[in-house]
Amino acid sequence: MNKKDLIKYFGERKLVEMIIEKSERFQTKYFDKKSLKSHIGDDSGVIAIGNKYLVISSDMLIEKHHFLKEMTYYQRGFKAVTVNLSDIAGMGAHPIGILISLAIPKNLHINEFNNLIDGILEACSFYNTPLIGGDTNEGDELIISGTGIGTSDDENILMQYGFKNKDLIAISGEIGLSAVGFEILNKCLEKRLIENGISSEFIKKSISKILSPVAKVEEAITLKKSKMVTSATDITDGLSTELHQINNSSVKRRKDKLGFIIHEDKIPNIDIIKKIAILLNKDYIDLIFNFGEDFELLFTIDSNKINEFKEYFKDNKYYIIGEVNQSNKIQLLLTNGKIKKINLKGYEHFK
Amino acid sequence: MNKKDLIKYFGERKLVEMIIEKSERFQTKYFDKKSLKSHIGDDSGVIAIGNKYLVISSDMLIEKHHFLKEMTYYQRGFKAVTVNLSDIAGMGAHPIGILISLAIPKNLHINEFNNLIDGILEACSFYNTPLIGGDTNEGDELIISGTGIGTSDDENILMQYGFKNKDLIAISGEIGLSAVGFEILNKCLEKRLIENGISSEFIKKSISKILSPVAKVEEAITLKKSKMVTSATDITDGLSTELHQINNSSVKRRKDKLGFIIHEDKIPNIDIIKKIAILLNKDYIDLIFNFGEDFELLFTIDSNKINEFKEYFKDNKYYIIGEVNQSNKIQLLLTNGKIKKINLKGYEHFK
Repeated sequence: MNKKDLIKYFGERKLVEMIIEKSERFQTKYFDKKSLKSHIGDDSGVIAIGNKYLVISSDMLIEKHHFLKEMTYYQRGFKAVTVNLSDIAGMGAHPIGILISLAIPKNLHINEFNNLIDGILEACSFYNTPLIGGDTNEGDELIISGTGIGTSDDENILMQYGFKNKDLIAISGEIGLSAVGFEILNKCLEKRLIENGISSEFIKKSISKILSPVAKVEEAITLKKSKMVTSATDITDGLSTELHQINNSSVKRRKDKLGFIIHEDKIPNIDIIKKIAILLNKDYIDLIFNFGEDFELLFTIDSNKINEFKEYFKDNKYYIIGEVNQSNKIQLLLTNGKIKKINLKGYEHFK
Repeated sequence: MNKKDLIKYFGERKLVEMIIEKSERFQTKYFDKKSLKSHIGDDSGVIAIGNKYLVISSDMLIEKHHFLKEMTYYQRGFKAVTVNLSDIAGMGAHPIGILISLAIPKNLHINEFNNLIDGILEACSFYNTPLIGGDTNEGDELIISGTGIGTSDDENILMQYGFKNKDLIAISGEIGLSAVGFEILNKCLEKRLIENGISSEFIKKSISKILSPVAKVEEAITLKKSKMVTSATDITDGLSTELHQINNSSVKRRKDKLGFIIHEDKIPNIDIIKKIAILLNKDYIDLIFNFGEDFELLFTIDSNKINEFKEYFKDNKYYIIGEVNQSNKIQLLLTNGKIKKINLKGYEHFK
């Protein structure tokens, strides 16, 4: 056997591409395309049911890769619901239910099990979404596999494609904080950061973002209603991965080559994160673009409607960080006026 | 720490009960019950969407517990789709899509990965149901977590409860074959069974049932249309577990105490399975009632409509094996005229 034939040498993105390619060959054979509104690579599946649209997505969280050891079982349960609802929020759908399947190590303490279930149910309560089923199994490691179910009353679902030249690029909240929170916990850096002038408030916010992330479900529904948003997705794998993903999604459908330019000075907390990056001996670009776990929304706004949008969305937090152009690249306009290319480098399994 | 507090001392059924009980306390707080038509313990979740009903269920398959080592990766992928569609078939729903999330060991060979995906997609094709999404992750062991999505045009969904005294109990095909197939493969018994007069055809059928099970999706849709079926479920965890489960589901809703009596002489292949049980030094009751993995439908028929039903369902295989009574027990009428109580003993994780 050639060792290079093991899947660890392929990487998650390549494997997913293989699945998508195979599935496209199969789907054409038998599937009534009129009711399926999504492509297998989209954030969620979209199917017409009667006069409504079902928006549905699955996400699996694995102990070793998705849960910091500092996370309580309550936080793990809550996060699993957040992650699954974030995917359907990325499309502006209204959540109507969630399914959770569990693989649980047999030596888990019953109190930890109870905390896990409480976290799941409190999150369901927080997002006003019932737990409608699932499955419980014995496994070697804790795995929480969920399915978020949402609906839309109309066909105007927020998709990854749809943006056009000159549209403005926005995010629903601060990014890079999860990355900072992870580093603080992982390397016990709290004291050192405080000594170097980072506020304990910023540190707390970063730790809370990595341990207790929240999906922007209501904000996404409000964005969808606006009809001024031309595309959207949730930021799970890092802004870099998501920008590449929405560009690919667009290229696949539109054939014209668009690109994005992000203005460094418009990224919230850029100076603090740069400072922290130096203290951590890390590239700040990695913290902001490549770590992920932000669970914020990334969306594009029709530039002709920006004033109207600002008035409409004024009660919500958001940051306009760049615009769509025709560069066919993801670029970062640095504060020194130079332009840096942002390569695809977000989190990937099997790498 | 008290060792008895580890979840392995509780058993899957107790843990699921705990989840259901907690979730009931939470759900009442916030959930609009008008659209949710199911209870968390049902085969699938049922939600009204516009003028249709969504039927949705998740099932997780774990390498060590659900896949025999003799199974090819193609068979594992196919089985994952079967298991998930079997749950929505249990309600007579029309499948419209499936989501598959994977945890894959990093040392899996790319050909095995390809075979796994082919199995999933061929099953989708077989059941005429598109793969609409999922997730791919690195895990310590192979885990396939799926969500089957179906719809019903009307509220007449096949539920676990609904049967009444004197209804007839039926199954959609042979049971106990998966158990026999498992034993044959596990203990390399093929030669010995043939020497003892078991036909190679029966052996082949049993092996095929454990390696390549098929869900009775079309049969379930036909049953639902009949309006003569008073309850149904799919047999995943063994006939004993499913009979106890539908009785509990009924007791919870109806308060009256019903029971079931199964006639041993009406169980297909009973003589062959008894003979094999002796050769295996096993209890034939365990093979038929307690192993599971049958993926047949268990359903009850209004006894006043039995002639009409026989005419309606004549093109399909099925066996009437007993009837509903008021015993409040699950009983087996043996061929010698004696009655044996069937205890809850089906497959359970953490036991």
